[in-house]
Amino acid sequence: MEFVPRFEGYRKKVEESFARQGFMTLINAKLVDVNPGFCEIHIPYDRSLTQQHGFFHAGIIGTVADTAAGYASFSLMEEQSTVLTVEYKLNLVAPGDGELLIGRSNVIKNGRTLKICRSDVFVVKNGEEKLCAAAQLTVMELRKRSDG
Amino acid sequence: MEFVPRFEGYRKKVEESFARQGFMTLINAKLVDVNPGFCEIHIPYDRSLTQQHGFFHAGIIGTVADTAAGYASFSLMEEQSTVLTVEYKLNLVAPGDGELLIGRSNVIKNGRTLKICRSDVFVVKNGEEKLCAAAQLTVMELRKRSDG
Amino acid sequence: MEFVPRFEGYRKKVEESFARQGFMTLINAKLVDVNPGFCEIHIPYDRSLTQQHGFFHAGIIGTVADTAAGYASFSLMEEQSTVLTVEYKLNLVAPGDGELLIGRSNVIKNGRTLKICRSDVFVVKNGEEKLCAAAQLTVMELRKRSDG
Amino acid sequence: MEFVPRFEGYRKKVEESFARQGFMTLINAKLVDVNPGFCEIHIPYDRSLTQQHGFFHAGIIGTVADTAAGYASFSLMEEQSTVLTVEYKLNLVAPGDGELLIGRSNVIKNGRTLKICRSDVFVVKNGEEKLCAAAQLTVMELRKRSDG
Repeated sequence: MEFVPRFEGYRKKVEESFARQGFMTLINAKLVDVNPGFCEIHIPYDRSLTQQHGFFHAGIIGTVADTAAGYASFSLMEEQSTVLTVEYKLNLVAPGDGELLIGRSNVIKNGRTLKICRSDVFVVKNGEEKLCAAAQLTVMELRKRSDG
Repeated sequence: MEFVPRFEGYRKKVEESFARQGFMTLINAKLVDVNPGFCEIHIPYDRSLTQQHGFFHAGIIGTVADTAAGYASFSLMEEQSTVLTVEYKLNLVAPGDGELLIGRSNVIKNGRTLKICRSDVFVVKNGEEKLCAAAQLTVMELRKRSDG
Repeated sequence: MEFVPRFEGYRKKVEESFARQGFMTLINAKLVDVNPGFCEIHIPYDRSLTQQHGFFHAGIIGTVADTAAGYASFSLMEEQSTVLTVEYKLNLVAPGDGELLIGRSNVIKNGRTLKICRSDVFVVKNGEEKLCAAAQLTVMELRKRSDG
Repeated sequence: MEFVPRFEGYRKKVEESFARQGFMTLINAKLVDVNPGFCEIHIPYDRSLTQQHGFFHAGIIGTVADTAAGYASFSLMEEQSTVLTVEYKLNLVAPGDGELLIGRSNVIKNGRTLKICRSDVFVVKNGEEKLCAAAQLTVMELRKRSDG
């Protein structure tokens, strides 16, 4: 799907919002790409991000799916809007066993108030991407509210 | 619901598994309570756990909902089993604005292979608990597999 | 939770809306109870409502969970509003094997635009209720829109 | 994704299972296509399938999403297996306003025990397809159990 952004400066707005998220700094998440209705985030492996078997924790996998969807949606919002995740649902389909986590999200319905997204999370091992989680998410546009 | 654990040493098994999760250390999560089919986890507020408005990040809220459900389920599993989250769905119902996050999860169906849980996440502000998220989760018992 | 309805005639409004749903007539669903933030619906067993093993079809189980949540939410809305399900998530926890299906839904968060509900679906066999599904749902209030 | 079926007679097995579902007959659902890991189901509009505004009921939309996923998964199972929906999550993204409902589902992860699917539901109005719902589902293979 092709979306026309309502605010031309959407990319800078997304980058600034991402930079304000303390949690993205803590887990060393990188905003790699943002386009109208799309966002990609990377998180390199670190022992501090693991569950009991030493793989990426489901909470980190959920975080990347959710944050990518939030910013895929935010890229389509008006200048004076902020963004709120209403809900998300995540299936973990393979262990998060690898050196890098990649979350990609696409808006599949760009409603006035609600944006619906699908996120795919891949784990990269020896340079090969493998689907490790699939999510479906509902994101809300809050108008005339500061994002900061 | 009252559940009878299949392994008497379930509490120690849960504590040891929790301690192996590097991510629980990173975010300073505390395993506060575990009983057959129930688990409670606390996470004190820290600026490093926030989204762009300075509240607890949805990823942290999802993490506490998921981890509590995983260990509520793990408390009912056999000695030689490990635990895997199949999927979870989370509604964020109020901002995570407070000094402490509390996740409580109850098993509502204790199937042989799949355990179904409901988790409630509360944020505590000035000593008062407020529901900030509600989740429903599917957890799998993997038999004859090490948890370590 | 105790909710105060915004429109005193909520019960009649719910009953009339329910009566307009052709699908409720087709599957012989009964609106058994509605209170502020709560709704209960019954569906008697019929061979025409089954999946391949002769039990209640997952689609019927989802329908009762969704419709109960919709009307639990509708009971809290303004006189001039209509209701829309945004999304729902349903776990099927036991076969729908019995003579009656009961859906009960409670609003757990009564937001201005979005209501979050939990629905439990029970199947009754030989007079005994058993949980067969658990759902979590997001319902939207559309203001100044006719429900008819 | 390309999947290799484990049982060559999968198509006949799916058709026979579909035919045993009383509910598919009641709502006049047609099994239009089944391939390894894919299924498409159609439901023509009828006043008996509606919610209060005269559109396809969310319960019908959920039914088509779920049934398509069940049979997309069933097409990949062993001869002696039956199928069970563990859970599904459905976003309703546009009103079910049209003359035909189309559900298409793809398996996105073909696990030994669990199959994960995504279903898209379209409503056709004046010959034009429009996305009206998106779902993500978890389906279980039960081995050595009759489907009848």
